[in-house]
Amino acid sequence: MEMDLNAQEKKTGFFQRLKEFPTKLKDGVTKRVKNVKKFGKDDPRRIIHSMKVGVALTLVSLLYYVRPLYISFGVTGMWAILTVVVVFEFTVGGTLSKGLNRGFATLIAGALGVGAVHLACFFGHQGEPIVLAFLVFSLGAAATFSRFFPRIKQRYDYGALIFILTFSFVAISGYRTDEILIMAYQRLSTILIGGTICILVSIFICPVWAGEDLHKMIANNINKLAKYLEGFEGEYFQPEKISKETNSCVREYKSILTSKSTEDTLANLARWEPGHGRFRLRHPWKKYLKIAGLVRQCAFHFEILNGYVLSNDKAPQEFDSKIQEPITTMSREVGEALKAIAKSIKTMSKDSACVNSHIDNSKKAIENLRIVLKSSYPETEKDLLEIIPGVTMASILIEVVNCVEKISEAVEEFSGLAHFKETLDPKLSAEIGQHQLLHRGSVKPVLDGDNEKEDNSSLSHVLITVHDEEQPPTATAKNVLGAEKARVDVV
Amino acid sequence: MEMDLNAQEKKTGFFQRLKEFPTKLKDGVTKRVKNVKKFGKDDPRRIIHSMKVGVALTLVSLLYYVRPLYISFGVTGMWAILTVVVVFEFTVGGTLSKGLNRGFATLIAGALGVGAVHLACFFGHQGEPIVLAFLVFSLGAAATFSRFFPRIKQRYDYGALIFILTFSFVAISGYRTDEILIMAYQRLSTILIGGTICILVSIFICPVWAGEDLHKMIANNINKLAKYLEGFEGEYFQPEKISKETNSCVREYKSILTSKSTEDTLANLARWEPGHGRFRLRHPWKKYLKIAGLVRQCAFHFEILNGYVLSNDKAPQEFDSKIQEPITTMSREVGEALKAIAKSIKTMSKDSACVNSHIDNSKKAIENLRIVLKSSYPETEKDLLEIIPGVTMASILIEVVNCVEKISEAVEEFSGLAHFKETLDPKLSAEIGQHQLLHRGSVKPVLDGDNEKEDNSSLSHVLITVHDEEQPPTATAKNVLGAEKARVDVV
Repeated sequence: MEMDLNAQEKKTGFFQRLKEFPTKLKDGVTKRVKNVKKFGKDDPRRIIHSMKVGVALTLVSLLYYVRPLYISFGVTGMWAILTVVVVFEFTVGGTLSKGLNRGFATLIAGALGVGAVHLACFFGHQGEPIVLAFLVFSLGAAATFSRFFPRIKQRYDYGALIFILTFSFVAISGYRTDEILIMAYQRLSTILIGGTICILVSIFICPVWAGEDLHKMIANNINKLAKYLEGFEGEYFQPEKISKETNSCVREYKSILTSKSTEDTLANLARWEPGHGRFRLRHPWKKYLKIAGLVRQCAFHFEILNGYVLSNDKAPQEFDSKIQEPITTMSREVGEALKAIAKSIKTMSKDSACVNSHIDNSKKAIENLRIVLKSSYPETEKDLLEIIPGVTMASILIEVVNCVEKISEAVEEFSGLAHFKETLDPKLSAEIGQHQLLHRGSVKPVLDGDNEKEDNSSLSHVLITVHDEEQPPTATAKNVLGAEKARVDVV
Repeated sequence: MEMDLNAQEKKTGFFQRLKEFPTKLKDGVTKRVKNVKKFGKDDPRRIIHSMKVGVALTLVSLLYYVRPLYISFGVTGMWAILTVVVVFEFTVGGTLSKGLNRGFATLIAGALGVGAVHLACFFGHQGEPIVLAFLVFSLGAAATFSRFFPRIKQRYDYGALIFILTFSFVAISGYRTDEILIMAYQRLSTILIGGTICILVSIFICPVWAGEDLHKMIANNINKLAKYLEGFEGEYFQPEKISKETNSCVREYKSILTSKSTEDTLANLARWEPGHGRFRLRHPWKKYLKIAGLVRQCAFHFEILNGYVLSNDKAPQEFDSKIQEPITTMSREVGEALKAIAKSIKTMSKDSACVNSHIDNSKKAIENLRIVLKSSYPETEKDLLEIIPGVTMASILIEVVNCVEKISEAVEEFSGLAHFKETLDPKLSAEIGQHQLLHRGSVKPVLDGDNEKEDNSSLSHVLITVHDEEQPPTATAKNVLGAEKARVDVV
């Protein structure tokens, strides 16, 4: 009886599920579709890239559809299709790197393969396959071994792969066909056609430059550091006031901790790219990695700082309230310095006066902190243990200031190599260096007849309002963008 | 006259260089050859892998050399060569992942391609190429877009590529040939032959398992952390005594800071591998990434600690000598705990008693440090500022202990999932937990009739000597290896 009931239940359960299936399916599908749409919207370049691949494929399939082309290339047209599929990469640098590697490797390996077949002919019908097999084995093994060397792996990995492939092809099929020269020529020409289509589509239809991505990434990473420092005071001294949203925004720096491989890849691909937009041909791409390393070092400090910020085991209120003012100034000023650095990179214009003034301010705050610590010492503490978390936090924050100074120096050196524009009037920037100016919005800079740079000084005026601490962060971001646009219009 | 002299000089300079050229060339070549040899010796698996690729290529070229095989496959044999070249990867996981992706993607795309050609037939001779081109464009674009999704990118990126390739091939050449079914069959069968050769050679000739590499890497990384802590006391308190060699050995932890991408890749490939050696089929590979994350967190702390170790701005001698003893105990004990964890992972045997006892000891040292700080406070310091570096260092080191505790917990959890062996007699391990035992070499464990585990307990006896602090580190490493070997022999 019980079993019957169970069976009954199961049956109704099954029908129930069968009934619900269409709605569930619909919900699942709509959810998926929404996800895909969101994914595309997050970075529309993904959709454009997919379209570009489609276009390149359609173009290359003309080799089959158009009769005269088919007559001249025949079935070898498929090498062109293969080339398009494997060579077309998201960035121009990736496509160029693969295309050039493929082209040159095919050329060299094809020539060597033809040579190998001619050499093997001398050994008679019996010896030929043995010699060919030996050559394929040894060259294949040697080229595979070369792929382990970091230098080759970094730039010519794909080339080595195609070398093995083409050499084996030509050498092995040379045993069965006498038309290897024609075969090698057809293979090379179809690969050239496929590669050229890829490179042209990649460069001329909404190009995605690896170099530009790297440039933006570094500037964004510096901005992420600035965001953390912006939220630092609130997080440490008023943790109860912090909303979840600010919290996640503040933690954005975490992505920097493990971004090294992405940066390395982008820098590597950027070196294949021709000059474009603001970047000349021999742009110092490697220098980005140096800056990125220093930025990551700073992020490491944040990671440790974070432990003290989130910990419940904080120094006594009495002590914290004493150090609050210098700590706040320190973190704010060094955050502003980072923002100025990020902006200078984004707009590719020098702004060391502003950066240095902020760093100097943060250094003054360090001195104030020292004074506070010195004076507060005998009265406040009965116990050194209690203030250890506060002292450690302050000590690490001082190290952060040092880190940021190093970043600033590296960017300064880089700005010379990358031909950053000189936007600021030196006299004006000296004025900006003064502390009061930085904290007010509507100061008119005094110009002493240096009319040539008036345009620039009006921009630097914008810059002062950008750093006004009264403005909310979103407005700041907009201003930065506005200033960037203005500067681009000027030049 | 002067010009004549210059020309003369240039001439002799040229001849000089011409004379030196052979020796220079010889030096250059011998240097290169030495480098290559050293590179091969560093990891002989690289040479073996290169040979394996050569063997696979030679095997697959039999499709051309052996007449009956050539008659049945013909020119399509080249697809097998292509498959071998692109599918053969360094690790078994890599080869399996690429091989299976290639096989299944070809199967699915081939079937769809044949369907597409049949569909296009209905649209007449005019409409056929348009329909085919449309299908190639849309499926190519969709598959390209799917490659951006992290999940697909991680596991099926190569499959999506091959899908686009095969579908385009079949659909486009279907317009010109009526034998697409034969073509699809030949392509599939040759790919199967190539893939099978790759997988067999990869698995049965000196296999390189990604899973094993990951396993060893995590254990080695934990050992690197231990090395830093081993050298910590010397570095901080007697920096003048430290040689350059120890210095570089101590800094090995730096590689952990940026090892995330390697770990992710290995874990990803390991999931493709069948059970092998000590690893079952459903080995918890993802858990390694959790442990690796905690290990990296610990390395971040070292990076900050390093700043204080290398800094000249240290706390006064007086203060340092007071904290030296607890700090030394702390760093040594937590280092020993890490070593025990690394060993437990390497030998895949549980040893939480030993680990926990070391962690407990380091916690006791933290308490001692607190007492020292409390008592030393009023007499030593006239100035809080001076002792800040020392206090910060101590504070971060305390955080390191917390980190290591987390690592130990994660490994504990992992050891259950990964079926680590229970090697230690619980009663014995309780004894080991006592502090004195750990620091002597020749203690005979008392067994109360639990003869079943006698083998294991004798091993745990080895384990005690391993942790003897009187032994030099190299001897320790040998002991660890010896114990590992012994344990492997037992099981």
